[in-house]
Amino acid sequence: MEKWSPRKITDIFSTPVFSLKRMECHHPEKNVDHDFYLLSTLDWINVVALTEDGEIILVRQHRLGTNELTLETPGGLVERGESPESTAIRELCEETGYFPDRITLMKKLAANPAIQDNHIYFYLAENCRKTGEQDLDKDEDIEVALFERDQVRAMIRSGGIDHSIAVTALSLYFLMD
Amino acid sequence: MEKWSPRKITDIFSTPVFSLKRMECHHPEKNVDHDFYLLSTLDWINVVALTEDGEIILVRQHRLGTNELTLETPGGLVERGESPESTAIRELCEETGYFPDRITLMKKLAANPAIQDNHIYFYLAENCRKTGEQDLDKDEDIEVALFERDQVRAMIRSGGIDHSIAVTALSLYFLMD
Repeated sequence: MEKWSPRKITDIFSTPVFSLKRMECHHPEKNVDHDFYLLSTLDWINVVALTEDGEIILVRQHRLGTNELTLETPGGLVERGESPESTAIRELCEETGYFPDRITLMKKLAANPAIQDNHIYFYLAENCRKTGEQDLDKDEDIEVALFERDQVRAMIRSGGIDHSIAVTALSLYFLMD
Repeated sequence: MEKWSPRKITDIFSTPVFSLKRMECHHPEKNVDHDFYLLSTLDWINVVALTEDGEIILVRQHRLGTNELTLETPGGLVERGESPESTAIRELCEETGYFPDRITLMKKLAANPAIQDNHIYFYLAENCRKTGEQDLDKDEDIEVALFERDQVRAMIRSGGIDHSIAVTALSLYFLMD
């Protein structure tokens, strides 16, 4: 199977979270040209965080994409010069005030390689303790909520957790556990 | 928890797959303004397809986002006027040549409500039989591969399936099974 070969890449627009690029490509085997539009962005992290009692720490926030309050696993962008693991700990602390005793990478996945160039690092943070308060950006408004394992599993099956990245994180945790 | 209120929405750029919009928003409780960038796109479907023998039908294709050959569950865009279920059957047939005896919705999730407005419908297609050949667009180059359930589960745990949406689909199947 031959790969598409990009012949020209053009920057179209940059936002604080991603930039949009056009890739003018050629397929050598099929001998066709095609324009692909790429969202270029930093890597992301997402964290399944467990308290010392084994409860799962979730966050609720308003998401403008769907105009809903969504229940999610904590997550964020890996800043330049920061490791994914440090980002996971930082975002967990900032969004929830909880700090983990142990953090392990469950999985690194391509976020959506059809249109994006970045990866998501999914972490498991264990024995988290509330060591401080939330430290939110001015554009963040986040509620913290703890749930039993079985409650979370039921919400994945029947509704209540509808953000696909949070479902991926939690499903990985349940599958790997 | 108050919601962000969009005051002005501006179209920035349209591609065949998504369009980029700027939402100038205000938060009534925090009394701050913030610009959000939204990717507006059609809904997507994704299919866990099983043969009559219980093998899982995956597709391999070159993805320009990561410049990798990725192993995935079949998927695609719900065209205007088409139901998600019809799309799932159509995409499965076009990408693989297999047709299902039964198709059921496992889950509808928000794709990524932080930046996107669309949903992904995850289907389970059962008793699929090879009834024809692939019917690909000129820009598609897709290989079909069948795997045992346990092989797929191992590839989610240890590598081999690295596309986050495919991992979500397959994890949902394993969790709900």
